[in-house]
Amino acid sequence: MNPNLLYQHGTLGALVPGLLNGTQPLGELLAHGNFGIGTLTGLDGELIILAGVVYQVQASGQVRVIETGAVPFANVHWAAFQAARPVAAPDAPAAEAAILKQVGSRNLFAAIRWHGRFAQVVTRAVKKQTRPYPGLAQTAADQAVFTRDGAVGTLMGYWSPQLYAGMASPGFHLHFLSDDHNFGGHVLSFAGVAGELAVQRFSDVQLHLPASDSEFLAADLDGDLLGDITKAEH
Amino acid sequence: MNPNLLYQHGTLGALVPGLLNGTQPLGELLAHGNFGIGTLTGLDGELIILAGVVYQVQASGQVRVIETGAVPFANVHWAAFQAARPVAAPDAPAAEAAILKQVGSRNLFAAIRWHGRFAQVVTRAVKKQTRPYPGLAQTAADQAVFTRDGAVGTLMGYWSPQLYAGMASPGFHLHFLSDDHNFGGHVLSFAGVAGELAVQRFSDVQLHLPASDSEFLAADLDGDLLGDITKAEH
Repeated sequence: MNPNLLYQHGTLGALVPGLLNGTQPLGELLAHGNFGIGTLTGLDGELIILAGVVYQVQASGQVRVIETGAVPFANVHWAAFQAARPVAAPDAPAAEAAILKQVGSRNLFAAIRWHGRFAQVVTRAVKKQTRPYPGLAQTAADQAVFTRDGAVGTLMGYWSPQLYAGMASPGFHLHFLSDDHNFGGHVLSFAGVAGELAVQRFSDVQLHLPASDSEFLAADLDGDLLGDITKAEH
Repeated sequence: MNPNLLYQHGTLGALVPGLLNGTQPLGELLAHGNFGIGTLTGLDGELIILAGVVYQVQASGQVRVIETGAVPFANVHWAAFQAARPVAAPDAPAAEAAILKQVGSRNLFAAIRWHGRFAQVVTRAVKKQTRPYPGLAQTAADQAVFTRDGAVGTLMGYWSPQLYAGMASPGFHLHFLSDDHNFGGHVLSFAGVAGELAVQRFSDVQLHLPASDSEFLAADLDGDLLGDITKAEH
């Protein structure tokens, strides 16, 4: 339970050609942290992990607690956030600047947990894909989009330095869960926020690859995948 | 002592703008493995770590055993290689293909240890740089180059998938140490080889960043560093 270590199962680049099969059971993932984000086999919705509870935001918009399933890609860590501070920001760029200021560097991985009231949050949840899996660009277009004004809940996820694009989604990768558990997903955009912002910096990142998955071992991941990643995740 | 985990201190991208200060003492590095490669503060020579012994190939060509110093960048792991196999290859491309065949995938990080006779090995050792440190492209040009025909020794290092360029040197990053400890360095090229090849595949890679180093925290690493990395390391 090293609070300085961010754990990642899978690599974002592998989603690009459509390696969407879950290669780590949730139970194994949760052995590496109690806070995180991810997705399930077939990109079936968006995962939010808070205090060890796994919430799945489905493409129907429904949020449910799940205890089984497997992830092709997820990030988790042991929550040990620095003291939360009251922070307000008029829009997303100002909010992102406030987060980075609190992290103190663009060059470290960091976790973000911002609980408060958001003037608006726009999320998406990808629809479950089935074999043969399409590539990430096509998959990400097959999504439901949700908008909530005056959302009260938790904006949470990770900052990854630009240098590690390919392994992780560069920049912010944020999910949202409302306090009433009726709204959430992968954050596409948000408007003004006022609430309590906490961050957790990491000195270490552990990348865990599906080393016994024959599809992963055989995949062609040597192409220029970064353009597709940026298009799908932002 | 997880044999499935490759440990890396520092990130290759940070060398590009000249962050050449050692940020981890050798003693700490060796707590994470007994086999590896790296460099010292100011890129002072090339490190080869075998069975927990650290060899420094200096720009003078001299190879010495060192016990102190600090690394800006290094990879180590706990040696638990798969059984060595007798392998011969007429040239470097055939040798690299033989290594990848033994690893079984281009998508996993792997360690390489090939002991044998090499028709020719060409190495370099960077000259120690002093502050203000130049960028990596300029530094790598300030190097001594050594050629040995009929070298008997160990070709060793790591394979890193293309996807993680920026964090690691993509492709092969190989060093060499002759059995007589009179020749070695960062491998620029080699000719035919016959010997015993062993590889070790990793499911996990742990990236350890110098999270309390003010130069690292403040550096601008968001540019396109990959071109400079490729030029300097190959």
